Amino acid sequence: MRALLCTLFASIASLAFAEIKLEPVGYEIDGTRHQGYIAYNDGAVGKPPGVLVFPEWWGANEYAQSRARMLAELGYVAMVADMYGEGKTTSDRAEAQKLASSVYSNPETLKKRAEAALAALQQSGRGDPSRIAAIGYCMGGTVALNLARAGADLKAVVGFHCGLANVVGETGKIKAKVLICNGADDKMISDEEEQAFEQEMRDGGVDWLYVSFGGALHSFTNPEADKHRDMGSVGYNRTADHRSWRMMRMFLDEALDHRPAGPAERGIGSPR
Amino acid sequence: MRALLCTLFASIASLAFAEIKLEPVGYEIDGTRHQGYIAYNDGAVGKPPGVLVFPEWWGANEYAQSRARMLAELGYVAMVADMYGEGKTTSDRAEAQKLASSVYSNPETLKKRAEAALAALQQSGRGDPSRIAAIGYCMGGTVALNLARAGADLKAVVGFHCGLANVVGETGKIKAKVLICNGADDKMISDEEEQAFEQEMRDGGVDWLYVSFGGALHSFTNPEADKHRDMGSVGYNRTADHRSWRMMRMFLDEALDHRPAGPAERGIGSPR
Repeated sequence: MRALLCTLFASIASLAFAEIKLEPVGYEIDGTRHQGYIAYNDGAVGKPPGVLVFPEWWGANEYAQSRARMLAELGYVAMVADMYGEGKTTSDRAEAQKLASSVYSNPETLKKRAEAALAALQQSGRGDPSRIAAIGYCMGGTVALNLARAGADLKAVVGFHCGLANVVGETGKIKAKVLICNGADDKMISDEEEQAFEQEMRDGGVDWLYVSFGGALHSFTNPEADKHRDMGSVGYNRTADHRSWRMMRMFLDEALDHRPAGPAERGIGSPR
Repeated sequence: MRALLCTLFASIASLAFAEIKLEPVGYEIDGTRHQGYIAYNDGAVGKPPGVLVFPEWWGANEYAQSRARMLAELGYVAMVADMYGEGKTTSDRAEAQKLASSVYSNPETLKKRAEAALAALQQSGRGDPSRIAAIGYCMGGTVALNLARAGADLKAVVGFHCGLANVVGETGKIKAKVLICNGADDKMISDEEEQAFEQEMRDGGVDWLYVSFGGALHSFTNPEADKHRDMGSVGYNRTADHRSWRMMRMFLDEALDHRPAGPAERGIGSPR
């Protein structure tokens, strides 16, 4: 009992003095500087697993950074990828669409930029380069999924309100476990797209899960989405946001064999 | 810090001395004795929320009882319903089918038996009668869902590999939050059935989630299912079993506002 209490005390103490840091991280693709952000727990011991965060079409903005910070609070090293270069972000829809299509329209661009972000995280010196997952929101989810399709060494992919199209056109190379968290009322993702995704996962022998969140629209994890309700089927949903985050956490902890430092999640991983 | 350590110590001590009990519980429907099983933590303080467990078509057998016990370990009071009377169980498929159709073929029978089980749990004197969820496996999931459709006072329903048909023929009366955990390769549940379910949930303004488990077949939570692989699209899936149980746990904790006694799940409910 004394040993157990000491362990608990040490865990609490380490949590109490831990500090979450978020820092810019630069990397280069074909002569263009890309600027992502890396979040980590300054008091972490050992080599925690890593999580790449692929942002919505707005770029590596504060929202994406906040998710990296939340992941660091869970004990991960998390890096927001810059898919546009120069750390470009926007809050203008027309510009976001233009930036996004520069990534979507060319499979090689998508692949190269996503792979460069993965390499940047692996070479950051923080975390375990062999245990990395990728998550993504909206366009970012599609990017994460396509990075896995291209055969990247990812343990897991989690996509939130994300398109499922096979942009890179490669099949049978997915090594990652895949969790999709999409809104049941998100009209931007068609039934055909969903069916094609399921068939692809089946054919590829992928370990996958698809969660349909009743009442949830596109961008349901982002409180800012309510500014774009005029787009139709777009909006924030607090319940779905929180539930999908918990599911992601459960999924990543399993796929990355991650045991949080404290006693907080003792039950996870041992359902019986 | 001292107060925190004392709380932790008290929690650990109560967990250490707690004992899970499983006892038969009898109730009557139209002169027939039904025998369910109630599982609880003998060391629990206060009034824990309750969970009804509706079994597969085999009846209130050891498998269903094991789930009740697992729920009691999580701090719930759990009761296995006897849908057949006299605690009847079988391991014979033809007999199971006959017993099941005696419930399915008559909406009033289904409703009456499910409601009687709910009343028995509420009147057991264990747990909080106003905070009850129902879970069910296969036929049991359908029963749980239809109990909610009949307007029962349930906080949540969780169905595992369950048919989604509206047997009781009532709509717009669901008060429960609904989580469905079905296998993506379960051919017993058609796409049409799934679509009709989703539309019903949408029309009724239900708070619902549908999880499709890649690679999982019918009965994926039950290790015994492997004996029935000749039925086609039936079989156990350990990964899907464990993941769906964790999701259920997350969902029930939220819907029943359940805070486990120990420090084990501190993170749940506070994703940010």
